[in-house]
Amino acid sequence: MSLQAVIPLFPKFTALDGIGPYEVLQRIPDIDITFIAAERGVVRSENGMLGIEADGTFDDFPTPDIVVFPGGHGTRALLTDEQVLDWVRSVHPTTTYTTSVCTGSLVLAAAGLLEGLTATTHWGARDVLTQHGSTPVPDRVVEHLDRRIITAAGVSSGIDMALRLVELLYDRTAAEAAQLMIEYDPQPPFDMGSLEKSNDTVMTRVIEYAQHRD
Amino acid sequence: MSLQAVIPLFPKFTALDGIGPYEVLQRIPDIDITFIAAERGVVRSENGMLGIEADGTFDDFPTPDIVVFPGGHGTRALLTDEQVLDWVRSVHPTTTYTTSVCTGSLVLAAAGLLEGLTATTHWGARDVLTQHGSTPVPDRVVEHLDRRIITAAGVSSGIDMALRLVELLYDRTAAEAAQLMIEYDPQPPFDMGSLEKSNDTVMTRVIEYAQHRD
Repeated sequence: MSLQAVIPLFPKFTALDGIGPYEVLQRIPDIDITFIAAERGVVRSENGMLGIEADGTFDDFPTPDIVVFPGGHGTRALLTDEQVLDWVRSVHPTTTYTTSVCTGSLVLAAAGLLEGLTATTHWGARDVLTQHGSTPVPDRVVEHLDRRIITAAGVSSGIDMALRLVELLYDRTAAEAAQLMIEYDPQPPFDMGSLEKSNDTVMTRVIEYAQHRD
Repeated sequence: MSLQAVIPLFPKFTALDGIGPYEVLQRIPDIDITFIAAERGVVRSENGMLGIEADGTFDDFPTPDIVVFPGGHGTRALLTDEQVLDWVRSVHPTTTYTTSVCTGSLVLAAAGLLEGLTATTHWGARDVLTQHGSTPVPDRVVEHLDRRIITAAGVSSGIDMALRLVELLYDRTAAEAAQLMIEYDPQPPFDMGSLEKSNDTVMTRVIEYAQHRD
């Protein structure tokens, strides 16, 4: 079963949101992955320090099997970008799974896909989900398999989501093989990976760093 | 303290090896990151499905503060590439830290940096470290702070390594802030992330997938 996966790019995307799932999915020989954007060519990440080439356009892929919509500061502009929102609406009915990482779920929500559904996103953007008729939950991966929709939380959570996606598409052994190939045996040196685990000292630093970026 | 980090690219690199550390380091406002290669322009990952732009060349960066050398099938060609090996040898004496992810450590070893030292790499490449005078260990991150060298194991381990690197460069709060910003609270759906945890069923599938790639 050969599957076409697409990962949309847009100015100010967050790189790991897309590359985490890419690295899992590309381990499966039957999955073909294309990075797409409004136009072909190099698209720059949030800080401009990384450029990834879009090898196709949204229009080139009217019926992808898998969508992995990444997040990033640039999603703010997409929430009123009718070309992108129309594409999301038009492809979802025929995808096997429509998925998102981080604030990519805001785009799915703005397109109307998450109306009345629970979903997850980066911890700093939960209120935006609410504005678009979705109910944010702090889970790392939220599945609505009857709707073929999976949302993942901030940035690194796309790796966990993609492993589950491979299990759904193929089998558990395929997902475990991908996990072993990318040696995903995480050993974070600290335990500060969620809003629920944070404290004032760290949050003050996060705000300082985020302000520098904006 | 502004620091210049460089992440080398080469044909058939593994994307997550570089993008994992990039995503951690880019959260710190004082770190400037440049993807470099033998020539400027787009460089393709192992399967050709992803292109990342090299914004500079090795020659453009004779004195980087931080090196994060990623791995991938393409490292095989680098082990006899005197331009790359000479660059590694020439920059290391003045780096703050010279680091690697996955088979990137084979390049550091071929350049002579790991002679007589323990190091880590992807579980499938440990014997190559031995051939270059290093002693492979199965640890996820191996530090030789007196030599300013840190090696990380396969692919996803670069995220863990980079968090530790930020702690060494700045402080623990900086590293925890980066962890929170990328919501790195890993919840892998399976526990198959290391050679020591694998079994025959999964390894058979890994070999099948890897053969398809070669």
